[in-house]
Amino acid sequence: MKFCSRCGGPIAQRVPDGDNRQRAVCQQCDHIHYENPRVVVGCLVEHDGRVLMCKRAIEPRRGYWTLPAGFLELGESMAEGATRETHEEAGASVEIIAPYTHLDIPSIGQIYMFYRARMRTEAYAAGPESLEVEWMTPQQLPWDDLAFSVVRETLRLWVDELGNDRYAIHRGTVARDADGNYVLTEYRGH
Amino acid sequence: MKFCSRCGGPIAQRVPDGDNRQRAVCQQCDHIHYENPRVVVGCLVEHDGRVLMCKRAIEPRRGYWTLPAGFLELGESMAEGATRETHEEAGASVEIIAPYTHLDIPSIGQIYMFYRARMRTEAYAAGPESLEVEWMTPQQLPWDDLAFSVVRETLRLWVDELGNDRYAIHRGTVARDADGNYVLTEYRGH
Repeated sequence: MKFCSRCGGPIAQRVPDGDNRQRAVCQQCDHIHYENPRVVVGCLVEHDGRVLMCKRAIEPRRGYWTLPAGFLELGESMAEGATRETHEEAGASVEIIAPYTHLDIPSIGQIYMFYRARMRTEAYAAGPESLEVEWMTPQQLPWDDLAFSVVRETLRLWVDELGNDRYAIHRGTVARDADGNYVLTEYRGH
Repeated sequence: MKFCSRCGGPIAQRVPDGDNRQRAVCQQCDHIHYENPRVVVGCLVEHDGRVLMCKRAIEPRRGYWTLPAGFLELGESMAEGATRETHEEAGASVEIIAPYTHLDIPSIGQIYMFYRARMRTEAYAAGPESLEVEWMTPQQLPWDDLAFSVVRETLRLWVDELGNDRYAIHRGTVARDADGNYVLTEYRGH
């Protein structure tokens, strides 16, 4: 951030009075521009022991498999965002069952909220951001071709719990380990 | 938003190619500036049937009571943000027990995540953003002097569940009703 989005003045990084962090502050109008983490919402859609997977048609990670998910938009609830993304990417109309995984990735300023969901109708189809959409059993999941670590961890937890009477709600942080791989830390199930 | 924060060029609201929403797009460098909801994290700190409440020293809602909470910062997890805010506003070092309420307020582009938490030590004290910090029983809660609807709904759920073997994880949307009051809708407990 170099210019103030309100007045066009120059931005400097400094700690405002009464604050304890560096912020982008306009040198002309004094407006403080806060930058906050973004929320990504998505669905793990399940039916008869299978999960609905999308092959990405866009970067990043084009050609890799993911759960339908995307950035929460202004004006919608988290559950609305998760069902909207599922409709856009997988052509599926779904109903939220329950929150499932809450995964933070502090290093990139993102938080992920995946919901378990079920189909309202049988229809599904690849949207503009997907190359393919497929129902997969745990055995069919392409573990080496998953797009994102949060998707891998969410699927791993689901495979472990599949068939249980009650699913937990899981939270954790995804961070790089010593080898540079993104792994789940500070994990808790509830 | 009137100016591009990258190049200082003029901003226009338009739907970018491949998108379906109006975005703030720079007319000079074509950068798309996405605006997303902000995340507020906080703690319901409980001990011996009481909850730790803060009287706000700052606007908005100065002089009204709240649970310690604030905007999630870049570089921290939701649980870290909730414990940090509790330390800043209530001078308390706490440990997260579990997620408690996930409340969306789409009309103002905010999502709230409150965690149940317990004290690590006995110390607490009003921070710069608080006038007072007090332990309160359900009977002592100032229902008419609470700062925010999400705080009222979180406390109301907690009072209902107090003493249960298991606490649910609650989600819902807070929206204005026909009388202009913020009320909980699309509520579900899990």
